Formats: sequence, structure tokens, C-alpha cells
Amino acid sequence: MTPYRTLRIALLGAGSVGAQVASLLLKHGDELAARAGARLTLAGIAVRDVDAVRSADLPRELFTTDARELILGSDIVIELMGGIEPAREYILLALGSGADVITGNKALLAKHGDELFELAEQVGAQLYYEAAVGGAIPIIRPLRDSLAGDRVQRILGIVNGTTNFVLDLMDSAGESFDSALATATALGYAEADPSGDVDGHDAAQKAAILAGLAFHTRVPVEAVHREGISGVTAEDVEGARKAGYVIKLLAICERLTDPETGLEGVSARVYPALVPRDHPLAAVRGANNAVFLEAEAAGSLMFYGAGAGGIQTASAVLGDLVSAARRHVVGGPGVAESTAGELPVLDIGKVATRYRIRLAVLDRPGVLAEVAGVFSEHGVSVEAVEQSVSAGATAEATATLVVGTHLATEAALAATVAALEEQSSVVAVQSVFRIEGE
Amino acid sequence: MTPYRTLRIALLGAGSVGAQVASLLLKHGDELAARAGARLTLAGIAVRDVDAVRSADLPRELFTTDARELILGSDIVIELMGGIEPAREYILLALGSGADVITGNKALLAKHGDELFELAEQVGAQLYYEAAVGGAIPIIRPLRDSLAGDRVQRILGIVNGTTNFVLDLMDSAGESFDSALATATALGYAEADPSGDVDGHDAAQKAAILAGLAFHTRVPVEAVHREGISGVTAEDVEGARKAGYVIKLLAICERLTDPETGLEGVSARVYPALVPRDHPLAAVRGANNAVFLEAEAAGSLMFYGAGAGGIQTASAVLGDLVSAARRHVVGGPGVAESTAGELPVLDIGKVATRYRIRLAVLDRPGVLAEVAGVFSEHGVSVEAVEQSVSAGATAEATATLVVGTHLATEAALAATVAALEEQSSVVAVQSVFRIEGE
Repeated sequence: MTPYRTLRIALLGAGSVGAQVASLLLKHGDELAARAGARLTLAGIAVRDVDAVRSADLPRELFTTDARELILGSDIVIELMGGIEPAREYILLALGSGADVITGNKALLAKHGDELFELAEQVGAQLYYEAAVGGAIPIIRPLRDSLAGDRVQRILGIVNGTTNFVLDLMDSAGESFDSALATATALGYAEADPSGDVDGHDAAQKAAILAGLAFHTRVPVEAVHREGISGVTAEDVEGARKAGYVIKLLAICERLTDPETGLEGVSARVYPALVPRDHPLAAVRGANNAVFLEAEAAGSLMFYGAGAGGIQTASAVLGDLVSAARRHVVGGPGVAESTAGELPVLDIGKVATRYRIRLAVLDRPGVLAEVAGVFSEHGVSVEAVEQSVSAGATAEATATLVVGTHLATEAALAATVAALEEQSSVVAVQSVFRIEGE
Repeated sequence: MTPYRTLRIALLGAGSVGAQVASLLLKHGDELAARAGARLTLAGIAVRDVDAVRSADLPRELFTTDARELILGSDIVIELMGGIEPAREYILLALGSGADVITGNKALLAKHGDELFELAEQVGAQLYYEAAVGGAIPIIRPLRDSLAGDRVQRILGIVNGTTNFVLDLMDSAGESFDSALATATALGYAEADPSGDVDGHDAAQKAAILAGLAFHTRVPVEAVHREGISGVTAEDVEGARKAGYVIKLLAICERLTDPETGLEGVSARVYPALVPRDHPLAAVRGANNAVFLEAEAAGSLMFYGAGAGGIQTASAVLGDLVSAARRHVVGGPGVAESTAGELPVLDIGKVATRYRIRLAVLDRPGVLAEVAGVFSEHGVSVEAVEQSVSAGATAEATATLVVGTHLATEAALAATVAALEEQSSVVAVQSVFRIEGE
């Protein structure tokens, strides 16, 4: 009974996030209307199967299979279907009709963000995507707006809850990767096919989005260096713990100078890394997410919270919805994404970090000098070496060498590892981890 | 040499934040222009004394003592003078002329926010204030926009760096309050007159701003219950530590139900409280700030970073500047503050927390039963009691009793304390601390 104008909202998808968005929108309609300055009417929910079971009890008459008709009659379209098509087609249709669009579709943004943002700018519409990274944690808006006047230097993000849950369980309970993943699956933290999380695809999509935002440039997901966590062993986790580190799957976005050209560029990469135990990211437990960032003026900032979950992510979607509605009320076109930076994405080979390399070597005199020589030949400076004799299963006894390095480029390190593997005294290069957050 | 339109920026004040804003604006002008889509020209800096020494090297010709003339010729006005007048007058003048305004003036917002926001809405201008709370930490925009679709239940904020530095030093080095404050002053973390920080005035202003934003209502600073840290002793800190807590000055904003009327209201309060050592806020060291919040859908979130400092706070101001400039480029009026909540602010007496009360009592039989009886008479349920005999300076030996309570209202607790002070066996009520974050 308010004098507000009415905005028609179309919801595409009623999965775990979509159902919660619809439910909260219906439940808190009056409150949201007061905040937005407009009545937000849920015009319909487009789904493939009207009769599917939902995680929230929603009026059956809202459901439709005709997404196009729903979109064309709406002021604001919320896309929570996931996947590339038809999500891409529907968003283009919505933007083309002048509607603002809210999406949590990180795969689509990482792959077709350019196309979507360009159309939005062209027609003066706005594309919101706070839910695409970090679930409920406000991170898109802080990067896009709050830090727009600063120079972000580096982002270290724990942006995938599944892998953090698995690594945390390996660290806290000494479980193997397989056992921890089985627990994650049983508890609903991992999907039946966990490869999107475990192999770092999800984190790489988020890294592409974060790097683009932070450095005001376009970072295609294909340019993100990606390594997953399936190779991380209980021994790696235990060794890291003893050395004062915890292994975390990090999405890293960095502003760098190309060591060859001296020109500015960016790096976006995802891999399991050693993080010092006293770093704020080391305290991020279970399926939580956190984004730690360093900016020229602001210094170090951290954003922490639930990185996934239907109702948590719905919070981010509804925040975008209120923002979109307020914009409709005051009028005027949307603000385009800022990509004036146009920075090149550097190849992983040009990135320098510190490393810890675990080697199985023959337990005989001169091996240490031989190994040290290989590092030195490739310009990789050794900081510390730990040696321990292990019960060899082979005829000759073997020892374990853990080599910690100073800063070295990935290219130099890769060449070092290749040369080590050629050494007759080196039985195996068992693991290589980068150290981040120091 | 870009085809951008030019926006004229007026800066009022060239103190530690203002000088950094001017310096970064001049240094990164091209980059900011590319992001904002407009050239940001620093039209002038209004100061009282053109010849004063500044913390950054700035062109002398930018300085003027004629703030009014500068304001009237500008598109965006940045107010970093602090204080109530003439800051209030200048902001009203700027908004009245149609300029957007950016301010970090928490005292002014907490006292005259209503008047400023109303004028902004009336003329369609926007008032930005990310720098007013949490220095560089993006907290205003996340609350105002990202969480606009959610229901914030509670905020626990460490929003004053000086007091956190002092309390942290007392905790980590066992220093007395006076000694820790002297160190903070020597290191520049505390002002010559530290009362604004130490007595909780600064935190109370921030609590008023945060509570208003989080609950979409107006919370006058006078309605914020405020207690400072000057009464916190080394013994309090040590006792808290032994019991698994750390003492932090918290700004607390809570959505509550009035226990008498059953109606919804809010509480905003500032006091030193016991925080469990495993709470994320317990890890906030030195002069850092953090805002921990709980929302219905989003769950628990935390924002962490540098809460003060010239260049850090300048980051927040420049983020607002880019946002304001983008809005100018696309056109349209500003989005008004949302205060439709219109929730009453509950008196502190209606707030319920848990407490730890330290008593000096006469060391004689029956005292424990007598003290327990007083709690019980006032409806305060006792959870645990620790007793230790201390070397009494009086003729009769005294003992220390530490009483931990279950949830009780401030009113019930105050009546209990008053009654305890009447007991002949109670020598003194030595300290009363609330427990928060459990």
C-alpha cells in the first residue's frame, strides 16, 4: 500500500541460490521496497522443469518454462541458472531489452564477460555480479568502487570453499587427500564430480574476475595459470606444518613488472601454496573464503566470510537487487566497467616466488653439493636445506632433502627441477610448493 | 590529452588525510581519469593558513583561504577539515550548489547527518563518507549496498585504533593503562588530548553511523551508550587472559526486541568487553580495525585493515571520488540514504549480555552464599564463581571472588551491583565486564 513504483523482477533458475533469493524476496518484500524506494515484484521464475523439487517452498504459479517471455516483461533480470548457454543468450536478451542484470555466474563472466559488459555499456544498463566471487562476502563492490582510487598491488584469495575444506581437514586431522575429499562429498561440500573445484577451475574463474577488477584490465580465464590440489599429499601437509606453514589453494592476482621488458603487467594464477601460519589467511578454516589484498595507499585489507551456500549467496544477489532498483528509481544509465588499464597478463614463467622442494636422493657423500650445484647453475639461490635419512626400499639407502629457495622465477625453477631429475643421485623430485604471503 | 570532460574538485583541509588525497590525485591523475571517465582537476585546497607545513609537497598556488569561492566553482567537494563548523556550513553550501560531497567527518555525520543527507536528497546530490569509519577498510559501501538486501543482526566493531593499540599493549606486554597510553602517545597513535579516543567518543560516533546504516534507521550519537577504557587495569587484562578472553573496546550495534514491549528496536553501545581468544576480533592487533557482522542470510562476515592513517584513509576518499565522478559522467541524481526502518534505540538497561564481576569480599564463612543470594534476588543467574584469597591490607583478610553470569539485562545487573555494594561482606566491586562475541 505504498506509493512506490513497481519494478518487475525475473528470476532465471531456482537451484540452491535461486530458491533462497525468491524466498527472501517474498518474505522481506516490504522491507526491501522501503530500502529500494520501489516495490520489487517477483514476476516469475524460469526453470526447465516446473515440477522439480526446490529447496524452498515457493508458489507454483510463479514458475514458467518460457524464460524469453519472462525476461522481455521485466525491469531487472536475475540469472542464477549457471552454465554458459542459455545463460549467456538470456543475459544478452535482457540487457538488449534495457533491463539491468544480476548474475552469480562466474564461469560465464570469466569466459564471456567482455561481450556482456560491452552490451551493457552500449545500452546504458548495469550488470551486477557480487555473488560471482566469495559468496556472501562483499568483494566485487569494494574492489570496483571503494578501492577505485587506489592501486591494488596484490590479491591472495581463498575463493573455493570445497578445496579449503579438504586442505583444512588434511591439516587438522592428518587425513589423506582422498579421505578428506570423501568427507567433503559426504557432507555436501563437494559435488559428485569434484573436478571443477579440486582442479582449480572455479578458483581460476574467480581469479580472472578479481584480477580484471583490481587492475582495471581484462584477464581472460585462459590466461590464468592453474594447478589443483589433487597432488597434495598428507606428507606435504605434515611437512608444511612442521616448517610453520599451512597449504592453501590460493587465487593470486599481482601487479608485476615484466623482468624482460621492464613494462608493467599482471599475473593471475591458482595453485596450492605454503602460507605462513601467522598470516591471516592461515586462520581461514573449513569451507570459509577470504580475500586478502594489498593496495598502495590502503595497505593490507582482508574480507572474510561464507564463500558459498544458497542463503549466503542469496544475500549478495539481494544486495545487487536493491542497488539495481535504487538505480532504476533515480534513473540514468549504468556505470561501465573500467578496463582502461589494458595491462598484459604475464606468463607464469616470469613470476617470481620462493619455493620449497622436496627431493628423494641417494644417501651418499657429495649429494648435497651436487644438488646445490644444480640450483646455483640455474641462478636459483638456496636459502636453507634440511636433510633426513629415510628407510630406503631400494638397495641403496635414500635420504630426503628439503630445499628452501630465495625468490626465483618460475622459469628458472622449472629448469632447475628438470636438471635435478637428470641427476643420477636424485631418485625423485617429490614435491614443489611456492611460498606466498610472506 | 584525452577527450574526457573535466570535473573540478575542491579540497577543504590539508591535514594528514587531505595532503595525501591531494598528492595521490596529482600523482595518479591519468589513471584516475581513465577509471572515472572524467579528468579530475584539483581546483584548489582551502586551508586556514596557506603557509602551514604539510605532510606532502603540494604546489603553493593550489592553496586558498577562500573556501566559499572554491566550493561554488566545483563539481565535487572533498571535506577533510574535521570539526563541526565551518565544515557543516561548507558542506551545506556545496550540496546546495549541486556538488557531490565526500567527507570523512564522523563527528559531523554523527551529529548533523540528518540535515546533510536531507539536503543531498532534496537537490539530488550524493554525500559519500567511506572514510568516516574504518579508515581504508571498505565498510560503508558493503553495508549500504552489498548487504542492502539482507537483515544485519549484529555488528561488533573494533573501530578505534588508539584504544586497540593501548589494550593490545596491556595484553601483550602486561603494561598498565597509563604506561600503554604513554607509549601510544610517543609513537603518534594517540593525540596530545587522548580523551576523544580513550573515552569512546570516536567509537560512539562510528557506532551511530554503522547502526544507522545497518538497520536503515537514524541513530543519534547521543543515544549511543558509551564507556571508555581508562578504568581498565592491568589486573583486569591479566584476569581476562587467564579466563580465555581479551579486552577490546567494541562498538556494538544490535537488532533487538524490547523485552517490555516486544517491539523491534536497536541498540548501539561502546564499552570495553571480554572477547573470547578464538574469536576473529581477538586477533586484531595494534592500531588495526575490524568490523565483524552477522546477517540473517550472509552469516558471519569480517572486514579487516588499517583503521586510520593519512594515506590509508586517503584510499577511501579517492574511492569515493572515482564513484562520484562516474556518477557525474552518467548523470542522474544521487541515491538517498535509506532510513525507512525507523527503529527505536533501546536504552542500555534493556540490553542483555553475560558479565564477569570481580569482587573483594571479607574472607569469612557464608560470604559466597550471601553474594550468590544477591544475584539470585535480582534474577541474575550465576554460571561460575572463582575464589582466591588475597593478602588483605585490612585487619580482616579479604578474598577475591570472580562471578560469571548467564545472560542478564543491564538493568538487572546494575541493581545487583548496587545491592552488592550495600552488603557488609563486600569490600568493593572491583570490575564489571560484559562478554561479547560468544
